[in-house]
Amino acid sequence: MQPQLNFAKAGGLVTAVAVDDHTGEVLMVAYMNEESFRLTLETGKVHYWSRSRQTLWKKGESSGNMQELVEMRVDCDMDAVVVRVRQTGPACHEGFHSCFYRTVAADGSLLENAAREMTPEDMYGSAR
Amino acid sequence: MQPQLNFAKAGGLVTAVAVDDHTGEVLMVAYMNEESFRLTLETGKVHYWSRSRQTLWKKGESSGNMQELVEMRVDCDMDAVVVRVRQTGPACHEGFHSCFYRTVAADGSLLENAAREMTPEDMYGSAR
Repeated sequence: MQPQLNFAKAGGLVTAVAVDDHTGEVLMVAYMNEESFRLTLETGKVHYWSRSRQTLWKKGESSGNMQELVEMRVDCDMDAVVVRVRQTGPACHEGFHSCFYRTVAADGSLLENAAREMTPEDMYGSAR
Repeated sequence: MQPQLNFAKAGGLVTAVAVDDHTGEVLMVAYMNEESFRLTLETGKVHYWSRSRQTLWKKGESSGNMQELVEMRVDCDMDAVVVRVRQTGPACHEGFHSCFYRTVAADGSLLENAAREMTPEDMYGSAR
């Protein structure tokens, strides 16, 4: 049995926010189509839909930095989910634990506020 | 000075995740166009773009339940932001503190896990 999320609202996708189960930190924002949503619930490993590659994307399939699902919540409009995850390694392809490693100051300037855990080369074998 | 977010990637919008500054809880997911992003930084009050109404949306303009910006972060791809906010009243138009008031169980069933703070009638004067 699947709850009927509103995939129609945004071209077959719902927005997915991954939150670190240990720290409560927002790790990343990505998108799920119906298949990735189903696979996430069935396997307990978080799957997304890659908008840039236009393909199903099991988080960590190339980097090894998987996300184990702890809890999924859905919003009032049924078009966004929050997945609480146990994150292996950095969530960010840039090697930071969270993709949100920069603060936007009131004057619009960006400030890095986290240390890199790994280099992209460590994660993927070559820069990308 | 404005950091150059990638508004082009998703038709002029970036995804915005609002997080409660006190509890760390994800309150809601919405979208910002360039104007709402700029107004959020300039005024310290969170503004979104309403996809359903196709209009600038100062959070709380009809309900009174405003969001005061504490910190904004931007992700690696510059197409999503996390806003940490001081939330007045419920963030959700259904009267829950967070829009994510339901858990999706492994079998796909939905479970309400929060109490309503207000009724929609209290918030808007009539049901909507």
